Amino acid sequence: MPSISKKGQLMPQSPIRKLVPYAEKAYKQGKTVYHLNIGQPDIKSPQIALDAVKVHSLDILAYTRSEGSEAYREKIAAYYAKNNIHVKHDDIIVTTGGSEALLFAFGSIMDVDDEIIIPEPFYANYNGFSTASGVKVVPVISKIENNFALPPIEEFEKLITPKTKAILICNPGNPTGYLYSKEEIRKLAALVKKHDLFLIADEVYREFTYDGIKHYSIMEEPGLEQHTIIIDSVSKRYSMCGARIGCLVSKNKEVIATALKFAQARLSPPTLAQIASEAALDTPQSYFDDVIEEYVERRNTLISELKKIDGVKVATPKGAFYCIVELPVKNSDAFAQWLLEDFNVNGETVMVAPAAGFYSSPGVGLNQIRIAYVLNKNSLIKAVNIIKQALKVYKD
Amino acid sequence: MPSISKKGQLMPQSPIRKLVPYAEKAYKQGKTVYHLNIGQPDIKSPQIALDAVKVHSLDILAYTRSEGSEAYREKIAAYYAKNNIHVKHDDIIVTTGGSEALLFAFGSIMDVDDEIIIPEPFYANYNGFSTASGVKVVPVISKIENNFALPPIEEFEKLITPKTKAILICNPGNPTGYLYSKEEIRKLAALVKKHDLFLIADEVYREFTYDGIKHYSIMEEPGLEQHTIIIDSVSKRYSMCGARIGCLVSKNKEVIATALKFAQARLSPPTLAQIASEAALDTPQSYFDDVIEEYVERRNTLISELKKIDGVKVATPKGAFYCIVELPVKNSDAFAQWLLEDFNVNGETVMVAPAAGFYSSPGVGLNQIRIAYVLNKNSLIKAVNIIKQALKVYKD
Repeated sequence: MPSISKKGQLMPQSPIRKLVPYAEKAYKQGKTVYHLNIGQPDIKSPQIALDAVKVHSLDILAYTRSEGSEAYREKIAAYYAKNNIHVKHDDIIVTTGGSEALLFAFGSIMDVDDEIIIPEPFYANYNGFSTASGVKVVPVISKIENNFALPPIEEFEKLITPKTKAILICNPGNPTGYLYSKEEIRKLAALVKKHDLFLIADEVYREFTYDGIKHYSIMEEPGLEQHTIIIDSVSKRYSMCGARIGCLVSKNKEVIATALKFAQARLSPPTLAQIASEAALDTPQSYFDDVIEEYVERRNTLISELKKIDGVKVATPKGAFYCIVELPVKNSDAFAQWLLEDFNVNGETVMVAPAAGFYSSPGVGLNQIRIAYVLNKNSLIKAVNIIKQALKVYKD
Repeated sequence: MPSISKKGQLMPQSPIRKLVPYAEKAYKQGKTVYHLNIGQPDIKSPQIALDAVKVHSLDILAYTRSEGSEAYREKIAAYYAKNNIHVKHDDIIVTTGGSEALLFAFGSIMDVDDEIIIPEPFYANYNGFSTASGVKVVPVISKIENNFALPPIEEFEKLITPKTKAILICNPGNPTGYLYSKEEIRKLAALVKKHDLFLIADEVYREFTYDGIKHYSIMEEPGLEQHTIIIDSVSKRYSMCGARIGCLVSKNKEVIATALKFAQARLSPPTLAQIASEAALDTPQSYFDDVIEEYVERRNTLISELKKIDGVKVATPKGAFYCIVELPVKNSDAFAQWLLEDFNVNGETVMVAPAAGFYSSPGVGLNQIRIAYVLNKNSLIKAVNIIKQALKVYKD
């Protein structure tokens, strides 16, 4: 039998997916499972986007340009301008989700064995794209004690080698909910200029910032044009995860020309989803106001409920819709599995994401979980109560 | 300024795309351009598929499973059964186009510097995916003189090294239109078994076979279960290139488990397009009968018109909707550019794909072009006449 690749063997499994069989077991036992584990919001997609595909007038579902239609990219550029990010349509390549934007960015700037520095905990799929690209992730640990703020810049600098090509941040952060300040972005800017690196920012949660703090994009930072690459997506912004539309943005012409070659090899991003995504750009501000109000209420509920549990430590997120929670357990992987297999409160249990999968340093985050507050307030209260009751009886 | 990757520099540009600026120049000159260069059919998508998205009842455009919904994969398996390919739904991973299926297949079975043998001329994007994966394409030249039949199996065997992991064929072939016989598939089967290689077949044109010859799939061949991977797509089958839905099929569980990890990293194939593609599986046979009748008529017209031109050699395609044409010119790249820039018949000209980009052996196919017969019969007659007139005055 022919053998699979070393790369394929090394491809990590998602930290969430490996619990799926236990969730399925829980369903079979007739349990209700509160899903705190996933990044699929329960928020409705904008009606304007859902309707746009209903009235499509296509009779051939044809390719679009590999970089996305010019009309759509013009509208994206106008959206960015409103967010103080000044780019032209040809600084943008429309991609199949933020995932593909990451893949194109990695392929365009890094070769096998090159290194990328990422503050951890980080979005678990960064590991997958790095493995697929043969690139080495070099983590810098950020800490729950200071809400997962940017680690001291010297920590980054210590890790820079001739193979370092980029620093990648997620802002606001999945899984931390941390929102980097302008000062933190400036420190990173100075560092990438000094060492001639790229700075990639995954800004897919740009709109989801709380407590009156505004997002500061890496592309608002002057003088950084040749260094910055934004990864973006409609998935979370418009609760359209299934569209699979994102984009890669850079003022660096060489990066765009190179990413375009990757884009051309795969021909075109999905056409129907581009129709929905273009329409989504006309979503009224009231939609976001409502969504953000909802997330703030959920966050406040979640954090205050969690703080009532003995031995639980939680960072207060300022953006996105995730938080990392430290539990009084030794191994949250085993705890998460036990919750699904062996525990319930009146036939109900919860599924959480063990946080170890969001770290690439081995042995870090073993007592942490990620909670996505993608459920309504009442469900969150019930779910946190289940965790509370579970911790009373769980034995490591 | 930070530098882009070596891989990015090596990524080939599509042999078609590089002519686009000249086509745009032709438009500006007010010329009508007959596009014989593209694989985007002018055939309408099945109404049933177009309508399915119009009546969608989603209020959240959510992710599907990374491997595609079970319902859709069950229906795909039933489609294969009708084609004498017997697979279960869990032998199938739904992908974002055939492109992503190729990327997952390459990633799952090959590491950097591994080798894949491909009869050339071949679909140009195989070069792109190989470069992106760091894999080396080892070509075997097939010849216009025998319609691009499978080269002698000894030619393949000579090229096998310890780094060879797979043989890739496109059947029916883009750009050749060649349909491999059962005997040719059997020879390949014996070879991959002898040397413990994978056999990948891009069978996206399965339905498009002419002159009463039936397609014989690599997965119809008994005893080859652990070796075969099918790349498939709805793009050409239903004229739904913009859907970006394809699939990877294998009975080899390790291949599927590995490809699934790549699939999970990118989360989900596009949801709206899966709705359209699932509906497309109910397309009545009459749709294909009409389409095939149309393609046969076009092929016959194209070939008979081309044969009227002095010095032109053409292989008669038995499948797909492409053919390779040898012209009495030294460099078809220059000829194709000249057609757009400097030639017209009553304000009309043609855009063809120079064939050199479909070969990876340097210097081969320089006097060939690929013609896609994706235009109606009258347009084809006019387009071939333009080539005829052009060849009378063109000087290399």
